[in-house]
Amino acid sequence: MTTIKDIADRLGVSSGTVSKGLNGADDISEALRNKILETAVEMGYTKKSIHRQDTRKLCIFIENMDYYLEDDFGYDIILGFRQAAFKESWDVEVIPVSHDFQIKRPYDPFMLGRSISGALLIGFSWSDPWMKELETTKVPTILFDNYIKDNPMCGSVGSDSDEGIGLAIDHLAGLGHRKIAFLNGPEGSMISESRLDAYKKSMDKHGFAFSNRFIAHCPYSAEEAAGFVSKFIDVGVTAIICGNDTIAFGVEKECARLGYSVPGDISVIGYDDIPGCEKSDPPLTSVKQDRIQLGKCCYYVLYALVNGVSLSRNLLRTSLTLRGSTARVNERFPE
Amino acid sequence: MTTIKDIADRLGVSSGTVSKGLNGADDISEALRNKILETAVEMGYTKKSIHRQDTRKLCIFIENMDYYLEDDFGYDIILGFRQAAFKESWDVEVIPVSHDFQIKRPYDPFMLGRSISGALLIGFSWSDPWMKELETTKVPTILFDNYIKDNPMCGSVGSDSDEGIGLAIDHLAGLGHRKIAFLNGPEGSMISESRLDAYKKSMDKHGFAFSNRFIAHCPYSAEEAAGFVSKFIDVGVTAIICGNDTIAFGVEKECARLGYSVPGDISVIGYDDIPGCEKSDPPLTSVKQDRIQLGKCCYYVLYALVNGVSLSRNLLRTSLTLRGSTARVNERFPE
Repeated sequence: MTTIKDIADRLGVSSGTVSKGLNGADDISEALRNKILETAVEMGYTKKSIHRQDTRKLCIFIENMDYYLEDDFGYDIILGFRQAAFKESWDVEVIPVSHDFQIKRPYDPFMLGRSISGALLIGFSWSDPWMKELETTKVPTILFDNYIKDNPMCGSVGSDSDEGIGLAIDHLAGLGHRKIAFLNGPEGSMISESRLDAYKKSMDKHGFAFSNRFIAHCPYSAEEAAGFVSKFIDVGVTAIICGNDTIAFGVEKECARLGYSVPGDISVIGYDDIPGCEKSDPPLTSVKQDRIQLGKCCYYVLYALVNGVSLSRNLLRTSLTLRGSTARVNERFPE
Repeated sequence: MTTIKDIADRLGVSSGTVSKGLNGADDISEALRNKILETAVEMGYTKKSIHRQDTRKLCIFIENMDYYLEDDFGYDIILGFRQAAFKESWDVEVIPVSHDFQIKRPYDPFMLGRSISGALLIGFSWSDPWMKELETTKVPTILFDNYIKDNPMCGSVGSDSDEGIGLAIDHLAGLGHRKIAFLNGPEGSMISESRLDAYKKSMDKHGFAFSNRFIAHCPYSAEEAAGFVSKFIDVGVTAIICGNDTIAFGVEKECARLGYSVPGDISVIGYDDIPGCEKSDPPLTSVKQDRIQLGKCCYYVLYALVNGVSLSRNLLRTSLTLRGSTARVNERFPE
């Protein structure tokens, strides 16, 4: 067990100075404080207070995701996490972080400096500087829709793609569709890979033939989605499942522009079931990720990690919210 | 909210009689008590006491799995679950159940009658009568290595097959093996399916060719495993990954009987890392499922379910325990 004296000896300063650095006193320089925190992390020091009931502190880091308004994707995730954590007397700080912030403040020293026992990270991508640090972090950390290999301190939470995509294809199959396309999110993310797997498995299960011409990757953008629609229609597709709702909104709009009716000619299904689905034209059938539940899941898995239990990948149940964008296949629609 | 009076009215008995049935008083007949419990479940009645701190009760049901001795597979799972649950003031009852028991005592009424808030089931297979009931149970329930579709009250916990099988193949690849067979557990279980998937993915990742002759399904029995060994050797296999340690023990023994050295000619890897691995000849390299951790995971996921959060599929980290049954590929070994 590393002590404050060990850190002081290593740095050639007094124990008092190390204490000040660890506890955020403002009469030492920022540079010395950071040096103390980094050395403490390197030597494996942990504050005893982290495990005291009266100072239980968790945090949520957010990068590149809106969360301020009720309709924002992150809003309910944070709300659910807080609801579950507050019930068990944790303080939860919400900290938006930029690329620069991450470079300036290495992850483990930052957490130690603030006495935070564990964190949820949402909206992060592989280009974020902290992602590399997570491969060796000693801080219990949950990633939403991302997965860190080989580090038992990191857990992953997301919705069950097999279930979600399976529900979408089952529903379309029940309406007589067989030529079902998948306009996936961008290539190279864990979530796009698992949804593509799920699409292939479910199409196989139903015995529906599909080729690479039924599959495309697209940024999460309505504008960019438009370009894929006519290609799908050209190969006889009668239904399009989309990687998220924003892509689906773009598909609905482009169908209308091309003179095809949704759902008369083409059925469209989104993913996430964000509040905008009710207002789209027509209202969008979508795979629901209940974001309050997602936030709560993140808390419970983080809680296991904080207790030394290395839950790794964890999936939440999904459901399908039926609205007006899916209908019986149009038999007269030219193949 | 169903009340005791509602149940009494439905059954045409007094409220006092219903109370007796719900609370296990012994001055009413077993048949009437069961009738009361079944009706209560059917009407959606829940005891308020289930959520009181002083009567928090969980249980572990065991079918077809040894757990009494330290070396038994179930022992550490139960220990881990109890350790995590006791820390949070839950009573945990361990209840071995037979096929007959399950037929005589329907699941939900049994749980209500005992005021149990949630359960972990280990060792159950699809032929167990309660598995059908779990599709509609209202009781938070965790299954180890099994998964119930479409019921958010049921969660699944197991080790991460992708990671475990991946570690085994990475290790063998590092030793120069390319012709790696997989002697999987019996066909038709979730766990065998996911490990076979993992094997194929990892072999593909390494660019190692494999055919169906590299893959077989086998009961979890050392004796039955023996029959597969010469078939693998005939097609040039230099390493065999096994669905569990018992299968691997059988493979080691059969290799010796056929005059092949383990690991000189054939490398062997087990799965689970049970205590017997140290004593086998040679000591068995095995994918470790830390069963204490597994038990703790089961508790944390059950805890989320009891709190209304529908975590569905959850995976624990694995590791590879290196012992004497794997070595550099024998280049002189005839292909």
